[in-house]
Amino acid sequence: METVSENKCFGGVQGVYKHSSAATGGEMTFGLFLPEEAEETPVPLLWYLSGLTCTHENAMVKAGAQAWAAEQGIALAFPDTSPRGPGVADDDAYDLGQGAGFYVNATQTPWAPHFRMWDYVADELPKLITRNFAVDEERQSITGHSMGGHGALTLAMGLPGRFRSVSAFAPICHPTAGDWGRKQLSAYLGADETTWARHDATLMLREVGLEIPLLVDQGSDDQFIDLLMPEALAEAVAKRRVPATLRLQKGYDHSYFFVSTFIEDHIAFHAEALYA
Amino acid sequence: METVSENKCFGGVQGVYKHSSAATGGEMTFGLFLPEEAEETPVPLLWYLSGLTCTHENAMVKAGAQAWAAEQGIALAFPDTSPRGPGVADDDAYDLGQGAGFYVNATQTPWAPHFRMWDYVADELPKLITRNFAVDEERQSITGHSMGGHGALTLAMGLPGRFRSVSAFAPICHPTAGDWGRKQLSAYLGADETTWARHDATLMLREVGLEIPLLVDQGSDDQFIDLLMPEALAEAVAKRRVPATLRLQKGYDHSYFFVSTFIEDHIAFHAEALYA
Repeated sequence: METVSENKCFGGVQGVYKHSSAATGGEMTFGLFLPEEAEETPVPLLWYLSGLTCTHENAMVKAGAQAWAAEQGIALAFPDTSPRGPGVADDDAYDLGQGAGFYVNATQTPWAPHFRMWDYVADELPKLITRNFAVDEERQSITGHSMGGHGALTLAMGLPGRFRSVSAFAPICHPTAGDWGRKQLSAYLGADETTWARHDATLMLREVGLEIPLLVDQGSDDQFIDLLMPEALAEAVAKRRVPATLRLQKGYDHSYFFVSTFIEDHIAFHAEALYA
Repeated sequence: METVSENKCFGGVQGVYKHSSAATGGEMTFGLFLPEEAEETPVPLLWYLSGLTCTHENAMVKAGAQAWAAEQGIALAFPDTSPRGPGVADDDAYDLGQGAGFYVNATQTPWAPHFRMWDYVADELPKLITRNFAVDEERQSITGHSMGGHGALTLAMGLPGRFRSVSAFAPICHPTAGDWGRKQLSAYLGADETTWARHDATLMLREVGLEIPLLVDQGSDDQFIDLLMPEALAEAVAKRRVPATLRLQKGYDHSYFFVSTFIEDHIAFHAEALYA
């Protein structure tokens, strides 16, 4: 593992690190914020999964999350959204290939060898971080934005016991039913839709439910709301009687201005679970 | 004036606007955050001047200022750092020409026709903003980062009575004596150094002093600290007996991670003056 940069930030350190990834068969970059408390003792870890077109950097510089993570004594992990580089398959569209890993393990050509973001985020990167930094692997929570909200929800339900709480900003709620999902799941996983189900938060919620606290914020003026389908998640939450807080925020859109507005609430929500 | 974008943010609106500028003879873009209170009544305005290479956008997305401006009911203006476009002179260096206006009115070829950032920020843009938005022109304060800190300090001293308070993050303190300054002032203003003096915060402080509250933060691990010369400003402040708070922050560098860490303090500092 190689240190790309470390900047002091809110009393802690915002680092960027590179490493050779077995899961994706190439070099991966991630951001990690460690609060001051990590100098003394392992701290809880909140994962932030990003959306389409993002790298590890977008949320790290735009979401304003470090202020509140420092206040709560929580570390923040910012993974990339896909494998990258000249040897990695890509597509001209912004929503397929590099920058659009969708947090699945691809089984189809040409994506299969590198696009294994589920394994990377579920397994390899947590091990790397908990072994190399002062974070407590027993206290992890997860959040994300848009495609990253989809990732946060499906990882939380697919890895029961791993996380203490889950939240999302404008998540893709029902990817098997919409254009942000069907295109990518068919490309990465193939035509057999039974393999898609565990990557659909609405279907997972109906099927397996959720045992940890859930918070979702969605802007009412989100330009992508028809692709996100918050109504599908809301219905599944209500039907399954999942304890959850789903908030529709009047006038907010899909941007980081929306995320930064509500990130304080999300980090406070996770802190309650992580310090319970 | 044309609206480029408006995003709801912390209950207010983060806007980006374009307009034809008489001062710079071309099109200029700026960001303006209006807190929710501006729907009802004109609010105080804090100017944020940015550093080398920045546009209106960097601080707007990276500094995390809106959270605290919303809390205090203060508007934020984010001007660009220079004129731009194909008809505007430029230089291959990052620290001269486009992105490096230095908040002066150039008198020298090829800069003179467009590089009039002093007039733009001191005169044209304040008029445009106070006429078109619910901001109170009697309650203005100013801050900035690096080259923008230089701009904030020299504007505050060059326009007595305009601002109620001034602050800066890692400002260029003594440009007539260092490489971040001599190069640009000679290019824009020519060889006669008497014309440079009013664009040097240390010289201005010695000469005219400062009647409003001053707060400066400087990181001890700033990679550019030798170019910034905080010691020159500190000496002038002490000699002139200017009421000021100069803080050296241990371990912080020149990045936005440093700015975002202390922006809450700066906005609270300005709010005290703006609501006095």
